[in-house]
Amino acid sequence: MKFQEMPKQQLQALLESLRAVYEDVKAKGLKLDMSRGKPGADQLDLSDELLTAVTAQNGARSLDGTDCRNYGVLDGLPEVKELFAAMLGVEPANIIVAGNSSLNIMFDYISQCMTHGALGEPWMKQGAVKFACPCPGYDRHFTILEYFGIEMINVPMLADGPDMDVMEQTVKDPAVKGFFCVPKYSNPEGKTFSDETVRRIAALQPAAKDFRIIWDNAYCVHDLFETGDTLLNIHRECEKNGNADMVIEVTSTSKITYPGAGLSAVAASAANIAAIKKRMFAQTIGHDKINQLRHARFLGGMQGVKEQMKRHAAILAPKFQSVLDALEKELGGKGIARWNNPRGGYFISLDVLGGCAKRTVALCKEAGVVLTPAGATFPYGKDPDDSNIRIAPTFPPVAELETAVALLCLCVQIAAAEKILAD
Amino acid sequence: MKFQEMPKQQLQALLESLRAVYEDVKAKGLKLDMSRGKPGADQLDLSDELLTAVTAQNGARSLDGTDCRNYGVLDGLPEVKELFAAMLGVEPANIIVAGNSSLNIMFDYISQCMTHGALGEPWMKQGAVKFACPCPGYDRHFTILEYFGIEMINVPMLADGPDMDVMEQTVKDPAVKGFFCVPKYSNPEGKTFSDETVRRIAALQPAAKDFRIIWDNAYCVHDLFETGDTLLNIHRECEKNGNADMVIEVTSTSKITYPGAGLSAVAASAANIAAIKKRMFAQTIGHDKINQLRHARFLGGMQGVKEQMKRHAAILAPKFQSVLDALEKELGGKGIARWNNPRGGYFISLDVLGGCAKRTVALCKEAGVVLTPAGATFPYGKDPDDSNIRIAPTFPPVAELETAVALLCLCVQIAAAEKILAD
Repeated sequence: MKFQEMPKQQLQALLESLRAVYEDVKAKGLKLDMSRGKPGADQLDLSDELLTAVTAQNGARSLDGTDCRNYGVLDGLPEVKELFAAMLGVEPANIIVAGNSSLNIMFDYISQCMTHGALGEPWMKQGAVKFACPCPGYDRHFTILEYFGIEMINVPMLADGPDMDVMEQTVKDPAVKGFFCVPKYSNPEGKTFSDETVRRIAALQPAAKDFRIIWDNAYCVHDLFETGDTLLNIHRECEKNGNADMVIEVTSTSKITYPGAGLSAVAASAANIAAIKKRMFAQTIGHDKINQLRHARFLGGMQGVKEQMKRHAAILAPKFQSVLDALEKELGGKGIARWNNPRGGYFISLDVLGGCAKRTVALCKEAGVVLTPAGATFPYGKDPDDSNIRIAPTFPPVAELETAVALLCLCVQIAAAEKILAD
Repeated sequence: MKFQEMPKQQLQALLESLRAVYEDVKAKGLKLDMSRGKPGADQLDLSDELLTAVTAQNGARSLDGTDCRNYGVLDGLPEVKELFAAMLGVEPANIIVAGNSSLNIMFDYISQCMTHGALGEPWMKQGAVKFACPCPGYDRHFTILEYFGIEMINVPMLADGPDMDVMEQTVKDPAVKGFFCVPKYSNPEGKTFSDETVRRIAALQPAAKDFRIIWDNAYCVHDLFETGDTLLNIHRECEKNGNADMVIEVTSTSKITYPGAGLSAVAASAANIAAIKKRMFAQTIGHDKINQLRHARFLGGMQGVKEQMKRHAAILAPKFQSVLDALEKELGGKGIARWNNPRGGYFISLDVLGGCAKRTVALCKEAGVVLTPAGATFPYGKDPDDSNIRIAPTFPPVAELETAVALLCLCVQIAAAEKILAD
């Protein structure tokens, strides 16, 4: 029965019984974390052969004979560029391999745009700079924009990607210089942009000639099921529209091998690659090639990546299912929550009753379960509906996850009942 | 006999005989590189146990229990912060451990100053920005400044560091926002700043309140002899003058372990560390902790570092000696070249007859020996005297080094004789 349709007295009684259960759970002194999209220890174990993929015995030379221990190689080992090229569907010449963090690539690129421009004038010399922000989205994208004082404009996410009607209007402002997105298994909603949406994105005609889409393809191979979602190749689509320079794509092996010690890469047009390399030439002699060589040897090619991702999925799918089952069992039919059913990625996005997300997260925290702060999935941490909660089900073992989600469901109901009774 | 005092006819005859030898050498088709301060393969072998310092067997947990394979730890593992703190004579709280490149730390810091300022207004919002440039100096420092359009002002290097009379004058211009230097075993001259010079640097009263000294202590433990040069602690001296925020020190293990896969670190005041961390929070989840753990285990503490540096010195000292012997034997007493006698670091700085550096380097290149481009040790690649040549004797094996230096000495004499005869 829907909470909203329940007689007030009945709802009050329910709230009191929920609160009693809550106090019992609280007394247990839980200490659980569902806040970040971190792989679990069992997933990390899948890559432990990486640690000994380069030893004194098998040597530290790449296929072209480079001694990876020494200086040099600005844009990545050829075999690693090939691997990322295959992963992202571009030519190796359009790839630069960087360090362990695609976030670092994105930050540095925005910084470069601020000081040197995007094949144009420095953004800092052009007055106010704005970005469109499909949301809910990835809090770290918003953090980069906020750090650089770039004004963020909300663009709603629809079922198949950003609301392109709104986006097409938004980019008519020449101060709007771009947007970030996670086009496959989006963070936090797990949505994959439809072909139609990708085509409309690629066909954008922004007023700013130095407009850039940061295509954060973090989950490009991160399917939970045998058949994954498919995403159109943004570079091909942009080329068709004369927009080849409009997109900067990044990805990483953070959730293929190790989050703390993986590789990241950027894919972009020849002109963009040249501009990034020009900056990198002043910035570094080159990134860690031994770790690149480890990855080339451990993963082999795309076939190796796919097999590795199946092993991850075997661990992750039951965790996702456990959360979805609990949500359905505890919250289904009560009119106080909606959630997605992602086919990949790292998150389940839960929309609770408007005005209840902050209260729900606070209740969870008070009882020892840390969630991503409510609002974090929106620019400036402000969810206009105070509704979205990002669930990161990957890190805790299944037993802990069940405990945490049970508490979450309890808190969602308490917050909703409180809200309805107060209204 | 000095070339300048030789009868023209005799010098002409000498030139012709030198040219004949040169043609013979050229015919050999040499392909040698003395251009960059790269360790040799035998030096790299000294660190090969690093590769297996972290394995599935001995685990990837740091001393405080952090699983280094996963996300997290923005500023470095505690044991690695302690190691760099000991190396640089500061507290661990004043250390941030970064990726494999101290150049990257320096570039990012200047970029941060441009967009967000040095505890003040963004440099990009303050009009023209200038840097004092002790020179000859490290070309990569100049490259960073040039990339950001920062005007470079030459400050001569004296025997014990930058000419502080000139420096004190230069910093009276409020547009002058700082300088880079290599204070110990300077690049390229191998000079260590005297206590008096360090004290005068620390006591600078620049017109710019957001003035920053980038103290690139790349060779802090890189002694060639049992007793190394000593350098005053710049942080302590700055503190005495109320200038604690004026210095940003960096170093790396690039020439302790692997140039391509080492660690770098920055040491700075609490306020500067906080500003850098604020930027890093937007820039990355954290640097490669597994490589940090490898280094902590492989190097142990400072005692381990010192022992490792002795093993490097045992390989390097004979190479330096071989170059110095050849220079003395071939160029000594001829009035056409001066060179330093470094007690550490990676370079020998050779000053040839004014107007002859470019020609000398070109002659070497034509015969198959690549040197650092003449002028590279000065801002904008312009050596006002066309005199300085940076010799990097570390990479080639001794036999190749002898061949290369013999050619260099030949070319120095040819260029000098040509010059004197033409004048």
